[in-house]
Amino acid sequence: MRLVRARHAGHEFEARLEGTLLVPTDGSPKLPLHRAELLAPVQQGKIVCIGLNYFEHARELGMTVPEEPQIFFKPSSAVIGPGESIILPKASSRVDFEGELAVVIGRACRRLRPEEVPEHVLGLCCANDVTARDLQRRDGLYARAKGFDTFAPLGPWIETAYPAPDDVALQTRVNGNVRQKSRTRDMIWSPWQLVAFISECMTLLPGDVILTGTPPGIGPLAPGDRVEVSIDGVGTLSNTVAAETALKQ
Amino acid sequence: MRLVRARHAGHEFEARLEGTLLVPTDGSPKLPLHRAELLAPVQQGKIVCIGLNYFEHARELGMTVPEEPQIFFKPSSAVIGPGESIILPKASSRVDFEGELAVVIGRACRRLRPEEVPEHVLGLCCANDVTARDLQRRDGLYARAKGFDTFAPLGPWIETAYPAPDDVALQTRVNGNVRQKSRTRDMIWSPWQLVAFISECMTLLPGDVILTGTPPGIGPLAPGDRVEVSIDGVGTLSNTVAAETALKQ
Repeated sequence: MRLVRARHAGHEFEARLEGTLLVPTDGSPKLPLHRAELLAPVQQGKIVCIGLNYFEHARELGMTVPEEPQIFFKPSSAVIGPGESIILPKASSRVDFEGELAVVIGRACRRLRPEEVPEHVLGLCCANDVTARDLQRRDGLYARAKGFDTFAPLGPWIETAYPAPDDVALQTRVNGNVRQKSRTRDMIWSPWQLVAFISECMTLLPGDVILTGTPPGIGPLAPGDRVEVSIDGVGTLSNTVAAETALKQ
Repeated sequence: MRLVRARHAGHEFEARLEGTLLVPTDGSPKLPLHRAELLAPVQQGKIVCIGLNYFEHARELGMTVPEEPQIFFKPSSAVIGPGESIILPKASSRVDFEGELAVVIGRACRRLRPEEVPEHVLGLCCANDVTARDLQRRDGLYARAKGFDTFAPLGPWIETAYPAPDDVALQTRVNGNVRQKSRTRDMIWSPWQLVAFISECMTLLPGDVILTGTPPGIGPLAPGDRVEVSIDGVGTLSNTVAAETALKQ
């Protein structure tokens, strides 16, 4: 089942997607997908991300593989939905895409063992862990580099009938050119191991999202680009890229 | 005005505190404060923290003063209210208190100048940026060290008639002994400068909280301790400390 949030005639609602039909969960009439706009499938929860989770990505950044998962947060104010624009902030001269598999939590949990994770998961979606690479290096901490508005595209839906997440194909394309192509079996820690690790520290709540790290191939985005993150059995998240326009002089 | 969230007879509600009377904002009958339990005054928003914002604290950690504020996040799952217990996780052998002045956002904003900040602020409260110091040093990133459940005590209320935040007295006591004693005029960046800086990166929303950094004097907590953060003109946040009990074998 594909769970979405959508907007139609100024009204936002949750729905499931049946083929090309949106079926609102509140019982309102169905409507064709093309008449509505898909929004980010989650809104409010925390977003817990993993710093290095593919051996080859660690190598391309010149970083050693950590002994434990490195976690950091993105703020929910950074979330955008499919089709929305990633805005390149003036404060950075290099903003990178990072295609990732995301796990959406369905039931509150703490201190899970990996084998207990699936029953607490609502589904999977695609994510782009957009990163101001220059600020990441300058700051040391990642909050600013990863936390700008629009830096957390999620979507296009939450796939609840998802494939086993420890060996799915992930691909990131920029303007149709394949830039990242990997399988989650090349992860250092599997998605369920990551959720279990994070739950040792903090309670995970429905709507929280875990970004499981990006494979090698990261690179910069430019205004006008279209970036797509595709995960087999999950879907494709597509976003455009735009330069920041001065909101205020 | 002092804004609170409280629980009485299993019901949670928002109220203002008039002397020792709780006046629920939904028009329900007033009740004496001692008959209710104060909760954390905010629940859901993001918590943006500052790494080093007092010269003397940078010195005690052996760190150089950064050129720009260092920001990081705490997850809202870490928030507890006045009187609740900080739980020392088994994963850490040193958990420190960090008394701080917190700014609660009242109106959505982005890209503020410091002088525009006050009209977007709801009020001030006290905060304790509880930190697993050993994990902070080991991880490099702060998310885990600062993100355990119970590591974000906030309260006791939001003071909307707050004093000018660039020169208030802040004190942290453990079991009645003064451990941190400072004034916010010793900050590297003033609270309004910090809010403006953060708003350059991300939209701040009502209920978001900015922790403005801790003065020197940090130190470890032990089970049974009582830790109090007092800010003149704002209030006193008091929490107990307990060891983690195994929630699961």
